[in-house]
Amino acid sequence: MTSASAAAAPDRSAEPAASSMPDPGLLQGLQADLMAMPPVAALGLRVLDADDQGLRLSAPLSLNVNDKGCAFGGSLVSLMTLAGWGLVNLRLAQAGVQAEVYVAESQVRYRAPVFADLTASARLAEGEDWSRFLSTLLRRGRARIGVVSGVAADAGTLGCECQSQYAAILKPA
Amino acid sequence: MTSASAAAAPDRSAEPAASSMPDPGLLQGLQADLMAMPPVAALGLRVLDADDQGLRLSAPLSLNVNDKGCAFGGSLVSLMTLAGWGLVNLRLAQAGVQAEVYVAESQVRYRAPVFADLTASARLAEGEDWSRFLSTLLRRGRARIGVVSGVAADAGTLGCECQSQYAAILKPA
Repeated sequence: MTSASAAAAPDRSAEPAASSMPDPGLLQGLQADLMAMPPVAALGLRVLDADDQGLRLSAPLSLNVNDKGCAFGGSLVSLMTLAGWGLVNLRLAQAGVQAEVYVAESQVRYRAPVFADLTASARLAEGEDWSRFLSTLLRRGRARIGVVSGVAADAGTLGCECQSQYAAILKPA
Repeated sequence: MTSASAAAAPDRSAEPAASSMPDPGLLQGLQADLMAMPPVAALGLRVLDADDQGLRLSAPLSLNVNDKGCAFGGSLVSLMTLAGWGLVNLRLAQAGVQAEVYVAESQVRYRAPVFADLTASARLAEGEDWSRFLSTLLRRGRARIGVVSGVAADAGTLGCECQSQYAAILKPA
């Protein structure tokens, strides 16, 4: 997440009503960082939007379709994993903290086939706290945080969901 | 898995020593079925081999590399999910049973970064039984089975592992 991490802190003075939105530059940096990875470019990933609650990514069904005409499970997991990874990186960038972020474990449930373009949302898991995560990371050099992500099925119901733990390791100053 | 499912039952008369190997035609059919999916073609997937114990797939690191120079988590999950899916489909094809196979849930642990080309192995989970799975499928029209898959890290240790449940639904005759 080089460019998003290196981007300036968000300037929220112009639009007080949109104070929950990260700076557009951070999202553009995230999009560039993600698309620089060949398997992410192959997904056709797009960063949709983000706010204080979470981050949304999308990918076209055409590039991620399986033999049954719906979304391939691996693409669903990829997009959900990236949504969580992107969310943790965004929060670190907003806090001005330089760290590498790794997914450590995930529990995935495929609930219904997804026959539309894929939209993945990620948010903090219940009981987690960004401030505690950041303070642990700064104090110990590493920290873990739980993120929940999901992809809606075409009827608006949940197509699949993913509970993941991400590990962050502080970069040497 | 159209072509693998439709392939003939394995002919093991020529090589008694290789009696645990599925017919090469089944593996070629599996490879063709898998690569027909755009997200699988993007992985650069190759069916390596199979025996009574399991199935192995590979994919080059170059197509599946992340921002840290190691394998992208989503690609690891994709390959492990496909190895399990392929194994269940192979067993169905060997038994001459026509069914659709879906991954239902997965638990993934990322243990160590994978800095080499990816090789995923899938085998039946502890306590599972192919005969019971097939008889349930034929009797009730649907059945579930647990599969364990993993990708080795470059030092030969386990890079990541995935415990998955697959659901099979009998196709109408």
